[in-house]
This record gives sequence, C-alpha cells and structure tokens, in this order.
Amino acid sequence: MAKHSMKDLLIEELRDIYHGETQITKALPKMARKATSPELRQAFESHLEETHRQVERLEEIFDELDARKRGKRCEAVEGLVEEAKEIMDLDLEPHVMDAGLIGAAQKVEHYEIAAYGTLRAWARDLGMTRIAELLEQTLSEEHEADRKLNQIATQRVNPEAERRASGA
Amino acid sequence: MAKHSMKDLLIEELRDIYHGETQITKALPKMARKATSPELRQAFESHLEETHRQVERLEEIFDELDARKRGKRCEAVEGLVEEAKEIMDLDLEPHVMDAGLIGAAQKVEHYEIAAYGTLRAWARDLGMTRIAELLEQTLSEEHEADRKLNQIATQRVNPEAERRASGA
Repeated sequence: MAKHSMKDLLIEELRDIYHGETQITKALPKMARKATSPELRQAFESHLEETHRQVERLEEIFDELDARKRGKRCEAVEGLVEEAKEIMDLDLEPHVMDAGLIGAAQKVEHYEIAAYGTLRAWARDLGMTRIAELLEQTLSEEHEADRKLNQIATQRVNPEAERRASGA
Repeated sequence: MAKHSMKDLLIEELRDIYHGETQITKALPKMARKATSPELRQAFESHLEETHRQVERLEEIFDELDARKRGKRCEAVEGLVEEAKEIMDLDLEPHVMDAGLIGAAQKVEHYEIAAYGTLRAWARDLGMTRIAELLEQTLSEEHEADRKLNQIATQRVNPEAERRASGA
C-alpha cells in the first residue's frame, strides 16, 4: 500500500476537528449556564451559534474534497472539555468561576487556532484555494473569540485588576 | 467549607500544567526520533531542554506559594500527546510526517500559550510579581517555540510552497 499523502493527512485532521467542534457545541451551553457575568454568558452563546456555522463550513470542505463527512475521535478536545467540566464542578466564588471558565475556553480557542492555522497552511500548499478560504474564515472567528474572552477577563471579571492597571 | 478563591484556582491550574509538562518531556524525544528534517529534530531536542527548565520554574513557583509540588492529571495534554502518537503511527511520506509532527507540536504550544497566559494574568491580578515574572519567561519561550515551528514548516518542510509564495 502506498504511503499516505499530504491530502490524506489533511482529510484525517479535518475529521479530527469536525468531531472536536461537535463536542464543543455540547460543552458551550453548559459553560454559558455556569457563567455569572452576563457578558460572558452572551459570549459563550454567540460562539455556540458561530460553532454551528463552522461545522457547516467543514461539511462544505468535505464536499469539495469528495470525502465522506465523518468525525474521528478527537482526544485533545475531549481532554479540554473534561478540564472545563472539572472547573465547573469546583465550588468557586462567582468571579473565580468566571475566570476559570474563561481560562478553559481560551485553551479550546487556542487549540482551534493551532488546528485551523495548520489546516489552512496545508490547503494553501496543496493549491486548494476555496478550502483555504473557508478555513481562513473560521480561523478569524476563533481569533476574534479569543480576543473577546481576553477583553471580558480584563474589563468585567476583574474590575479591580483593571483599576490597578490604569492607576485609578 | 469556604468557596475556593482565585489563589486556590491558580494552584489547581499550576498542578495541571505541571503534570502536562512532564507528559510533554516524555513525548518530545519520540517526536524528535520520528522527525526526518534535521532542523525539526533539533527544534524538538532544544524544546525538550527548555521544557525541563520550565518544570523547574513551576517548582520554584510552588515554593513561592508554599504549596506542595504535585501534579494533577492533565487530560488535555494527554489528549494532545495521544493525537501526536496517532500521527506517528501513520504510514506517511517523510515530508508529510514532518508536517504532521509540526501540526501536533503547535497544538501543544498553543495549549501552553493559553495556559501560561491565563496563569500570568491571574498572578498579576493577585499582585504576585515574582510568580508572574516566572510565568512570563515560560510564556515567551512557548511563543518562540511556536514561531520556530512555523518557520520550519514554511522554509524546510515545504520548500515548494515557499517558492510559490515568493513567486520564484
């Protein structure tokens, strides 16, 4: 049997993140319910809608590649979701819970930034322009979601830190 | 019992990444052996040395906090290492194996960037200057390791992509 090519690896990794995204759509509603700051809850809810669109985008990519739309168990996202659950199970002061949820969510965002960044680079190298564009859209959304969480962490969850930083 | 504070959560998360780092020190030698490009092998080997110093830095932080040096099972890094193993077990063309290893390693780097970024923010908010400095050192190393992998991916593993990008 021939050794696997770059395109085979691309499809393999797309199946990995496809499964990962569906796990994330299950975790986000729980994280939203657990959030105490309304801004944070809202951020999780809008990212959930965005994630549904990202799943559809992956399905479009499988069509472009003539590959079957199927996921492959994504142990990394399973672990990330497990860590988020552990935080939700702790008995934390409300602002500490929010800080923990933001930390857990940013780990997920960074996983996705790495995954989509790699996939986009591979698609470009393979000359798959349309697929690279679709991956680029998702990558931008993940970067934006990460920035939004940073902003909430600084302004909302830690107003005292903010005051200290601004010297007020 | 009192609800857990920000400092409790900081210690909890430090134990998580402490365990994660020790798992990474076990995975990196295997990834180095599997790499076909000498630059990539070298990058994994130097990051292994760096990771040992990062573990010592975490131990210094536990001392600063008067907390016991112990890890807590880090499911996320376990999953990331599992994904790297899956790639190493595939029968890939040499340059495809290198691309896969780089992708897997960048997921680990991004996990660490998110983890140390959060820990540093919390340490700063808690006024723990020395600890924030130590975390900052590790965070810079992780950013640098990620940049290095990007560079190898573009210049070495994919010389053709590089030529296309430069219009040569």
